[in-house]
Amino acid sequence: MIGEIICVGNEILIGDTLNTNTRYLSKSMTTLGIEVAYQVVVGDHEERLLEAIETARRRSDVIVFTGGLGPTYDDMTKETVAKALEMTMVLDEEALDDIRRFFELRKRTMADANRKQAYRPSGGRILKNENGTAPGIYIKNEETHYILLPGPPRELMPMFENEVTPILEVLSSDVITSRIFQLSGIGESDLAEIIGHIMDVSDNPRIAPYAKLGSVNIRVTAITKTKEEGKKQIEDTTALLMPYLEPYCYSYDNKSLEEVVVQMIIEKNHSIAIAESCTGGLLSSRIINVPGVSRIYKNGFVTYSNGSKETWLNVPHALILKEGAVSEAVAIAMAEGVAKVSDASIGVGISGIAGPDGGTPEKPVGMVCMGFTINGKSIGTTFHFNGNRKKIRDYSVWYALTTLYSLLRA
Amino acid sequence: MIGEIICVGNEILIGDTLNTNTRYLSKSMTTLGIEVAYQVVVGDHEERLLEAIETARRRSDVIVFTGGLGPTYDDMTKETVAKALEMTMVLDEEALDDIRRFFELRKRTMADANRKQAYRPSGGRILKNENGTAPGIYIKNEETHYILLPGPPRELMPMFENEVTPILEVLSSDVITSRIFQLSGIGESDLAEIIGHIMDVSDNPRIAPYAKLGSVNIRVTAITKTKEEGKKQIEDTTALLMPYLEPYCYSYDNKSLEEVVVQMIIEKNHSIAIAESCTGGLLSSRIINVPGVSRIYKNGFVTYSNGSKETWLNVPHALILKEGAVSEAVAIAMAEGVAKVSDASIGVGISGIAGPDGGTPEKPVGMVCMGFTINGKSIGTTFHFNGNRKKIRDYSVWYALTTLYSLLRA
Repeated sequence: MIGEIICVGNEILIGDTLNTNTRYLSKSMTTLGIEVAYQVVVGDHEERLLEAIETARRRSDVIVFTGGLGPTYDDMTKETVAKALEMTMVLDEEALDDIRRFFELRKRTMADANRKQAYRPSGGRILKNENGTAPGIYIKNEETHYILLPGPPRELMPMFENEVTPILEVLSSDVITSRIFQLSGIGESDLAEIIGHIMDVSDNPRIAPYAKLGSVNIRVTAITKTKEEGKKQIEDTTALLMPYLEPYCYSYDNKSLEEVVVQMIIEKNHSIAIAESCTGGLLSSRIINVPGVSRIYKNGFVTYSNGSKETWLNVPHALILKEGAVSEAVAIAMAEGVAKVSDASIGVGISGIAGPDGGTPEKPVGMVCMGFTINGKSIGTTFHFNGNRKKIRDYSVWYALTTLYSLLRA
Repeated sequence: MIGEIICVGNEILIGDTLNTNTRYLSKSMTTLGIEVAYQVVVGDHEERLLEAIETARRRSDVIVFTGGLGPTYDDMTKETVAKALEMTMVLDEEALDDIRRFFELRKRTMADANRKQAYRPSGGRILKNENGTAPGIYIKNEETHYILLPGPPRELMPMFENEVTPILEVLSSDVITSRIFQLSGIGESDLAEIIGHIMDVSDNPRIAPYAKLGSVNIRVTAITKTKEEGKKQIEDTTALLMPYLEPYCYSYDNKSLEEVVVQMIIEKNHSIAIAESCTGGLLSSRIINVPGVSRIYKNGFVTYSNGSKETWLNVPHALILKEGAVSEAVAIAMAEGVAKVSDASIGVGISGIAGPDGGTPEKPVGMVCMGFTINGKSIGTTFHFNGNRKKIRDYSVWYALTTLYSLLRA
């Protein structure tokens, strides 16, 4: 069962918008046993969209469209699919009622433009939209399934889960099972050296490494006829790989690094407090994104200025003068300070130069110092990252988590 | 000059990885006057990749590939392009030297697998990679330009800027100029009502609204022969639109909402301090992502527990007992407390239930209370957001910024 996703929207072609819908759809369809073989993006352009539909119906069994169901004149997905399949557009009274009700519930007047959204291709049926005015469409035509979904993610996702999943889950006889090995501290080439001999002989399950920010992951995918077979294949491959991956693998059950770190903190009866300068709260926010973190998260400070480092974390004024705010000594003092004032067993301090200004030859943009203290034992470390302000901050958070992981594992 | 992006990688097809490369390439190519008409993703699968190359060369002038240049056996982009263009693969000695040097500089041993990366199609030339081992490739064949780039963004982006931009910028005679109107406080349908009469008559510049998290933007794009013409068209369209957009438009020069807010704080001689509970530092980190923010950002606290709200922000214990931690009264007390202890003229407090646990019928998951105080005048507001923990936090930050914007604008 080959799947294809066609995303319609100029905003994606010119790079304004990140294509998160296609990722969501790919993941969801894969889980349902559909092999997504193609993702395509075309603009709000009838001729090109028609061509994309023609190509897709030749090679794919399930074609999921997203975008172009809006009320404005440049929304043309429904009309173009109807044209390709030689269907007419008909007004769906029930859909019109739903749209009217949507506005009534919100005490807003329905715009005339929204009436257009109640039309559907004659051979299709409406998929309900609980979160917006654009209904989706499902068409089965000559063994090919066409699913048209709205572009806004908050409308697309619930519609996919409630209306599309029941349609798709009966289609595929294959089961796709996969496991991701998340690694830190090893590059893609070195990984190819240590597990290449396993990768080369394995086609199903397929073993594929891919690079991530500051790290590399491995995805193992099995295509089988039953869930049990899939599970067994994945477990067998895990047993083959783990002796090589053990030093690098922090998770193979979809846990994020912050989840793993929070879990280790809980298990070891620690608590944590964090003081951030250049990362501005990003590390705290990542850690607080883990449900249940309240048991171990004591406190966070965003101390961007020297004064606030002194006032809130008791970093000595003289130390900042002597070493500079971006130094391992100050990062350690921040870590120790925040642990002490927050009564936490673990303290983290981050101070760096995220740019674009503020760099010097001795302390260039991208230099980030971190301090870690665990039960009164402290270490400092300095990183040099490339990239813009955002990238430097993202790297900083990743390496802070990596370091915490190593320290807690030791 | 029609452009196409072909991204090669199973990790994108199964939804593991968000396709940020394609967005970056689309944006960069558009700026260079190339109309990106197609984005395609295919897997590491020779037959499908060949078909994608055949389709692309029929319809596009510039084809940019990303991914599949790695050292492992499933990286096959170069080899497949060579096959499509009937070229052989040849070892490029200079590229091999570069790869050797890359490892030497890092005091690492070059893996055998990396030798594969020094091969190129016979009709192509190498594009240098300063940040990794996979060189890029440029081929001109029968009026079509083929550009092969590595997958990791930190390798792809500098290569595009240094090596590819000089190739592409001489190709197009069209100039594409665009402006994005970023709005808050209006939906897509209402927008279609108020500016529909302008959108309907305008084909060049093209006026296209698109929905964003909690808001809608409008993109105006002009295709002209000269930069001056493009600029004039954009200015003329701005003059047409702005009377309608003025109440909603916070920026049309690519400034983010946080940049606009920081600028307003600077201009009004304010300073800000932020206390966050459920957002865990995310609002601070967004604000601190603005360069130059140190002039106005006093301090941030991540007070996740009730105790830390009391200790650091002086929120009265009795108030938390009476109203609950997630209440407008406590959010206001947090805002006032953080402003006072930080000596800031503006204070923000956020307290909410991000889930998945902790919701009650009276205070369900997604309920977020915010307090704002400016020069001692305080207001509180309550939002109800849908979605998972991350989405609720993202919405919270967006609406906190929107509210700050409105308050500062008033």
